[in-house]
Amino acid sequence: MRSFASDNYSGVHPEIMKAIMEANEDHMSSYGADPVSAEAEQLFKAHFGEQAKIFFLTTGTATNTLILRHLCKSWNSVICSEDAHINVDECGSPESMGIKLMLAETKNGKITVETIKPLVPSEPDVHRAQPAVISITQNTELGTLYSLEEIKSICDFAHSKGLHAHMDGARIANAAAALGVTFKEMTVDCGVDVLSFGGSKNGCMCAEAAVFINPELGKDFEYIRKQNMQLISKMRYIGAQFKALFTDELWKRNAEHSNSFARKLAEKAGAIEGVKITRPVEANGVFAIIPEHAVEKLQERFPFYVWDEQTGEVRWMTSWSTTEEDIDNFCAALKKLI
Amino acid sequence: MRSFASDNYSGVHPEIMKAIMEANEDHMSSYGADPVSAEAEQLFKAHFGEQAKIFFLTTGTATNTLILRHLCKSWNSVICSEDAHINVDECGSPESMGIKLMLAETKNGKITVETIKPLVPSEPDVHRAQPAVISITQNTELGTLYSLEEIKSICDFAHSKGLHAHMDGARIANAAAALGVTFKEMTVDCGVDVLSFGGSKNGCMCAEAAVFINPELGKDFEYIRKQNMQLISKMRYIGAQFKALFTDELWKRNAEHSNSFARKLAEKAGAIEGVKITRPVEANGVFAIIPEHAVEKLQERFPFYVWDEQTGEVRWMTSWSTTEEDIDNFCAALKKLI
Amino acid sequence: MRSFASDNYSGVHPEIMKAIMEANEDHMSSYGADPVSAEAEQLFKAHFGEQAKIFFLTTGTATNTLILRHLCKSWNSVICSEDAHINVDECGSPESMGIKLMLAETKNGKITVETIKPLVPSEPDVHRAQPAVISITQNTELGTLYSLEEIKSICDFAHSKGLHAHMDGARIANAAAALGVTFKEMTVDCGVDVLSFGGSKNGCMCAEAAVFINPELGKDFEYIRKQNMQLISKMRYIGAQFKALFTDELWKRNAEHSNSFARKLAEKAGAIEGVKITRPVEANGVFAIIPEHAVEKLQERFPFYVWDEQTGEVRWMTSWSTTEEDIDNFCAALKKLI
Amino acid sequence: MRSFASDNYSGVHPEIMKAIMEANEDHMSSYGADPVSAEAEQLFKAHFGEQAKIFFLTTGTATNTLILRHLCKSWNSVICSEDAHINVDECGSPESMGIKLMLAETKNGKITVETIKPLVPSEPDVHRAQPAVISITQNTELGTLYSLEEIKSICDFAHSKGLHAHMDGARIANAAAALGVTFKEMTVDCGVDVLSFGGSKNGCMCAEAAVFINPELGKDFEYIRKQNMQLISKMRYIGAQFKALFTDELWKRNAEHSNSFARKLAEKAGAIEGVKITRPVEANGVFAIIPEHAVEKLQERFPFYVWDEQTGEVRWMTSWSTTEEDIDNFCAALKKLI
Repeated sequence: MRSFASDNYSGVHPEIMKAIMEANEDHMSSYGADPVSAEAEQLFKAHFGEQAKIFFLTTGTATNTLILRHLCKSWNSVICSEDAHINVDECGSPESMGIKLMLAETKNGKITVETIKPLVPSEPDVHRAQPAVISITQNTELGTLYSLEEIKSICDFAHSKGLHAHMDGARIANAAAALGVTFKEMTVDCGVDVLSFGGSKNGCMCAEAAVFINPELGKDFEYIRKQNMQLISKMRYIGAQFKALFTDELWKRNAEHSNSFARKLAEKAGAIEGVKITRPVEANGVFAIIPEHAVEKLQERFPFYVWDEQTGEVRWMTSWSTTEEDIDNFCAALKKLI
Repeated sequence: MRSFASDNYSGVHPEIMKAIMEANEDHMSSYGADPVSAEAEQLFKAHFGEQAKIFFLTTGTATNTLILRHLCKSWNSVICSEDAHINVDECGSPESMGIKLMLAETKNGKITVETIKPLVPSEPDVHRAQPAVISITQNTELGTLYSLEEIKSICDFAHSKGLHAHMDGARIANAAAALGVTFKEMTVDCGVDVLSFGGSKNGCMCAEAAVFINPELGKDFEYIRKQNMQLISKMRYIGAQFKALFTDELWKRNAEHSNSFARKLAEKAGAIEGVKITRPVEANGVFAIIPEHAVEKLQERFPFYVWDEQTGEVRWMTSWSTTEEDIDNFCAALKKLI
Repeated sequence: MRSFASDNYSGVHPEIMKAIMEANEDHMSSYGADPVSAEAEQLFKAHFGEQAKIFFLTTGTATNTLILRHLCKSWNSVICSEDAHINVDECGSPESMGIKLMLAETKNGKITVETIKPLVPSEPDVHRAQPAVISITQNTELGTLYSLEEIKSICDFAHSKGLHAHMDGARIANAAAALGVTFKEMTVDCGVDVLSFGGSKNGCMCAEAAVFINPELGKDFEYIRKQNMQLISKMRYIGAQFKALFTDELWKRNAEHSNSFARKLAEKAGAIEGVKITRPVEANGVFAIIPEHAVEKLQERFPFYVWDEQTGEVRWMTSWSTTEEDIDNFCAALKKLI
Repeated sequence: MRSFASDNYSGVHPEIMKAIMEANEDHMSSYGADPVSAEAEQLFKAHFGEQAKIFFLTTGTATNTLILRHLCKSWNSVICSEDAHINVDECGSPESMGIKLMLAETKNGKITVETIKPLVPSEPDVHRAQPAVISITQNTELGTLYSLEEIKSICDFAHSKGLHAHMDGARIANAAAALGVTFKEMTVDCGVDVLSFGGSKNGCMCAEAAVFINPELGKDFEYIRKQNMQLISKMRYIGAQFKALFTDELWKRNAEHSNSFARKLAEKAGAIEGVKITRPVEANGVFAIIPEHAVEKLQERFPFYVWDEQTGEVRWMTSWSTTEEDIDNFCAALKKLI
């Protein structure tokens, strides 16, 4: 199968698979107290600072939900975009942990200080959930990017109101590569307090990390992770994935690959009459409207999702494993169907 | 490092690692809708029946907790042993999901109908949590086994009271191998309704399964799994592990290996003066009391856990990867220290 | 103090206080198994049918939250208006119980089938919270009324999608009185499944009821109530309040009084230059915009709330205890301040 | 009906009912911002210190559960007696909020430092729920009393381990009266950090208070109370009950009355052949074993509870409203049945 459904339809990058196999020696302490995980942790600190507290988990949902749970008292809420993965695509996981989401007006997946402001009360009120966190997704669920300035302005606003700034970085590598900046420049230097660092969509098997750039906020998170069933026993195999991802900037190579193939796809498909690219293509996602009759037929050969049932807008994701041939075949099929 | 700390200090069995690599081809549907997972599911059904509903997860804590959560309304409770992993070693995960545990008197990790009975009320009472599940661990946390008759009597009692029977099978392969029975004989035929099937301790990387033998009970569990952050995107790699585990009875080979090495260890270590084996050695765990001064020194070379701080009882676990040499070196070191 | 802040600034109606005192005789079974509560329950059934299951509670927040919790599995959501009390004014109580709210576009506090539709998915999806309930507030938080036809259309839509219809009736008496219909006509006959029946705002001390018109839905609610700390021991005093409320239609007399005084207030205040009544005055709430400089000064003498900090809109509530003098003094003060 | 089932079968003491009526004047701010509640709060502070933070609630279950929830992170546990109301009689309310209870060995309802010690781990462990609170009930569910020395030793132990000391004082007035000490001597001076102060069983209608003697621990409890549905709008009527309870030491008069009638009952009933008083009678509860054939017949005339189905032990509670005649009639009936 070849697909543009999601970057998680891809397999594991060979360099990562190799690292997994190399970790498969001898006995090692379980639950993260192993040398491979320790090494991976250090690689994270090289990006996010020695002070950072790092925790490995297995799913992006877990990373987002547990970070937010850890930052929120039961009466707190999280401000996010209407399109946020935490709002739309995690089966109510945050709410199942008692977290109220407050949705800010959103454009192309992005929120702004202007749209957040009305959600932050001028003073405490026992009758209302009290915001504690602002969460943004970088790059967004709609394939767009926050600029460093935009991230900084949201973080500054958050801090001015006593709130924490969280970044859902399920595709953080794509974002950093697209902006041409380091992880540090895009997070630490902008004032992000906590980051969901995603590996799975960038070529890992199942590797996500909660990165508490502000280490105070990560205190006791080990209990939250264990209790919420995310402390896998043979942690070394997660550590190994991250080791490979940070070696020779594999994260960037993978991200640049998928980003560039999204641009190619957008160009090539966008040039077909009857195809309208609907969003700025800034990372590895392409949104489009195509003739309705072509959708199902095209999906049969190349699975992808209809993003918006009302408008018919579809989403095509590229990944580290997308090939020129994939693009060519897909566009040929699309053209033929139209 | 060589260790007797836990079966999860071991790596991944080579046959399983090979299967993981073989699954690393092409694009595949994510979130479990892939052919590898489908194949693994079928292998489960060969053991537990076509009717069974199977769900893959990444940790034993998740499998136990989410099964129990799914079987319980908020006012229900679960009856288990005082030594149960769900009571002692999951950081309060069941209670964090609102599940009250009711602890039955326990001997060598086992409970009986006699000890359960007083916990089941004669009639509903709105002031009390109402038991909904009886949970046993096979083999137990103390390395002992329930006989088929014992399992059956507990399941029969459960059903006679309208309760469900759950088996925590984190080491189910060790149990089946030790009893010389099939999974089916030890679960389906005894009346077990739901099973936590453990792969990680038996040579997998991170592969656990919730097996709803009674399929009615598994209805909608997919939402529980997703919401509770256990639906990994690249599920094929879990499926692959189970495929290998069921191929050529790898599960049994691994289990027989670790069981037999536990017996060897118990014999050899038990023969050392000053060492007292404290529990029946029926699977892959050995419990012992050794001279206090020897504990820490021995742990330095071969990590293991002190099980009971009050009595000084220690636990030694064997695994599929334990070698004759491990046993010999360990016993030599122990003898020397005494 | 005289106030237009809320109908709950009022005391207890004398007829209700009398009933409380009359219940203060002898020993009675606790936790609701008393004859006074039984009698009150029967009075509810006279309105909502013999089949109805009735549970008494002490707060409106509890009644709403616990009903919704009872109707929802953890992966379900509740569709409601943006202005809904459950969304805005209960400190995230529904979410603290794991309930995701999905907000429909709202006009003057009301939602419609048109605005609900986009929130109901065409098919189940494990990645999304699945709607289980549509909740409307009658009369709304903005003092407006759903017509019987509107209620019916929402209930019909809910049922056509397999959802339940909940009515937050914190001010249900005001609504029924304003529409000139019976409780039955406004709920049972329109297809409402469950009702939060409010007594406290209509002259009671603290008396709310969960009315499961569809009795299936109320099964086991007694456990939810107890576990969630709403089963008061001396229940007879809640029962007594409801007895009085249903005697000689006290509920209607109180409601008509407060409704008519809201109309008077709107007329009299609305006639003052510089005062703009902003919403239809259909029950006992009046919304207005008055000159900004007058707000605080007026609040000092007659407490009331600023409803919307952005627009400066204020809210004035009348109650069973509002007097002609209150209206006159208030309007005189307002006029003077302007 | 006359009953020995529970002190909550009694009605409201006339002085308390009078206070309720007197509070029924005029408009008052809702949700606790009223002068009556303020006055009641001051009366509490006169006992528990100016620093104390006081919150009114409506049920004992709510007071216990919400205090414990507020003191516990999700991975914490509470150590209590096997007989504790929070363990046995609250329908799993603490666990429904995510609190794991750890049960210490118990004698006549009491725990000791010796029985608590094994439950407190020597060091943190991410796999185990970490104790945060020790909770005792004074007087106990079995009608026995902790001496001041016993309370102090448990509080000292708690603090030495970094835990908080909670007292479930559902019958605190009975305990203070029985020991002949002030509330302060029995709580503040012994090191109790937080107290569930019970009014309902001592003649109130529904009045309980969370008393944070250590005010740091009470920070933000107002959100917990609101979110968990315990902030009643017309709070003045709770305040009024407490005002009466503290006026002319009504609490002590009521408690002494019920305590002395329990002693009378124990003496008189205990003197009947075939009746065995099974526990020390130190407050207002009498536990006994009576001939099995007499139980149901006696219950028909005077409701009471069988405490232990296994042993047949029964419980008789006296209250502020128990009369000499009640005792005489009950003992006569008992004697006759035997």
